[in-house]
Amino acid sequence: MQSEIGLIPQLASHIIASGGKRLRPLLTLACARLCGYQGERHLGLAAVVEFIHTATLLHDDVVDKSGLRRGRQTANDVWGNKASVLVGDFLFSRAFQLMVSDGSLQVLSVLAQAAATIAEGEVHQLMTSNDTQTGETAYLQVVTAKTAALFAAASQVGALVADRPGHEADALYSFGLNLGIAFQLVDDVLDYSSASDEMGKATGDDFRDGKITLPVVLAFKVGTAEERVFWRRTLEELNQRDGDLHYAVGLLRRHGTLTEAVARARTYGEHARSALLVFPDGPERRALMSAVDTAIDRAR
Amino acid sequence: MQSEIGLIPQLASHIIASGGKRLRPLLTLACARLCGYQGERHLGLAAVVEFIHTATLLHDDVVDKSGLRRGRQTANDVWGNKASVLVGDFLFSRAFQLMVSDGSLQVLSVLAQAAATIAEGEVHQLMTSNDTQTGETAYLQVVTAKTAALFAAASQVGALVADRPGHEADALYSFGLNLGIAFQLVDDVLDYSSASDEMGKATGDDFRDGKITLPVVLAFKVGTAEERVFWRRTLEELNQRDGDLHYAVGLLRRHGTLTEAVARARTYGEHARSALLVFPDGPERRALMSAVDTAIDRAR
Repeated sequence: MQSEIGLIPQLASHIIASGGKRLRPLLTLACARLCGYQGERHLGLAAVVEFIHTATLLHDDVVDKSGLRRGRQTANDVWGNKASVLVGDFLFSRAFQLMVSDGSLQVLSVLAQAAATIAEGEVHQLMTSNDTQTGETAYLQVVTAKTAALFAAASQVGALVADRPGHEADALYSFGLNLGIAFQLVDDVLDYSSASDEMGKATGDDFRDGKITLPVVLAFKVGTAEERVFWRRTLEELNQRDGDLHYAVGLLRRHGTLTEAVARARTYGEHARSALLVFPDGPERRALMSAVDTAIDRAR
Repeated sequence: MQSEIGLIPQLASHIIASGGKRLRPLLTLACARLCGYQGERHLGLAAVVEFIHTATLLHDDVVDKSGLRRGRQTANDVWGNKASVLVGDFLFSRAFQLMVSDGSLQVLSVLAQAAATIAEGEVHQLMTSNDTQTGETAYLQVVTAKTAALFAAASQVGALVADRPGHEADALYSFGLNLGIAFQLVDDVLDYSSASDEMGKATGDDFRDGKITLPVVLAFKVGTAEERVFWRRTLEELNQRDGDLHYAVGLLRRHGTLTEAVARARTYGEHARSALLVFPDGPERRALMSAVDTAIDRAR
């Protein structure tokens, strides 16, 4: 993240200081270890994965006009949209430079594909935003592309650096993909379920932005005509009043769609865990399996 | 530019239809031919170069809040800032996928470096915007990074695909770098010099955005106290009134800084032409040399 252009390290250290779980690079490190990798290439590639993710966050914050992320002001709030777009571009380019210096065309291909898929998923999400006609299929496509593709690539890279056979790389790809879908499903649930108590980090951002996530997709499908009018007014027209978020959470609870979304996350979590079964039991495999549970148990 | 996400080809064909000189990919094609290259790799790599440029334009239009580019509505004007940022990200990722499929780590390294330099230059330009204290050195750093780096890489790639010796690749890099600086200097002059007549495409965009380009840097340096008050009001505070652009052009003419900037462009153009002298005379070399003149003669 170093650069002679002062704003770059300045904005970059703001992002670093704002924390985050570093889940994606941890997948690269843990999967490399699971594959018995002894070298150091996984370190640089884990950084690549986090850079790609961070660039996406910077551009997400711009386009969503978010004011807060991880409980702090977003970079675009402090330095403006311009800086966020351009520093995001810089991080993205640096990620590619790091990949090139790693020197494996196979790794480059996997991560370049993931980056393109993420961008496609972000555009797709933009198209489904404020559209209550969005169905489950479109929602799952968005989630798979914008979130799960990077989880999958981050995990698969662990097998690639260790030069493991194709079926192990495939297994880690499947592990990451299913974990990523589960993770995003839970994230989308949290955006509503911690809104009604007072301690939650999640604060109804998706509702305010008019994002159409699975709990809403399912509730809209079974909702009454009157409820659909509510969803259209709040999520399509973004005409929102005091109490609307509270009312929305009530609808999701009444129709059981938050619970249903968590149940689906558990199913994807199961797929993720099974994918690991091609690897021998041991502390690395157990750690990755428990990471799946941790990701899903956030929804409790 | 194909994608199942409809907005991507839609926005992409808008950009294609809006034309542009395609100067950067032409450099790749012409330099490859100058180096006697007989294969087809230069075609894909020329597309990479144009994709990187187009992604930059999309993000530029967002950050500058431009309403027009190449005489048409900008994409962000039609589809919104969100779409421009995300489709820009997509094009950038696709460029990297194309590079990876080309399969040369050397070419990847040159283009990834150029991409990072461009992003750095864009951030640097953002920092010098609205700052009348910007000096010639900072201006030249910005121009070299945001424009010339891609001209240089686009040209150098021609030697790399043809597997030419290092000194020829270096010569083409130097050719592109100097041409790029000359090109941007002339662009910056045109942004003021065609504003006073009626036919120009350039319409005082830089003035309205408060961009600090060489004609202004030089005029500010030799200007009276009263003139500096004018520049500060219009370019730093962006407090602009009718007639200000006309008055600004008058100041630049009075101090001869538009002419001075074109003179400097000619010097860089000379460097670009000399760099080509390591190659034998022939139609390819003459074409590239005349491209230098064409780029500069736009300022007439």
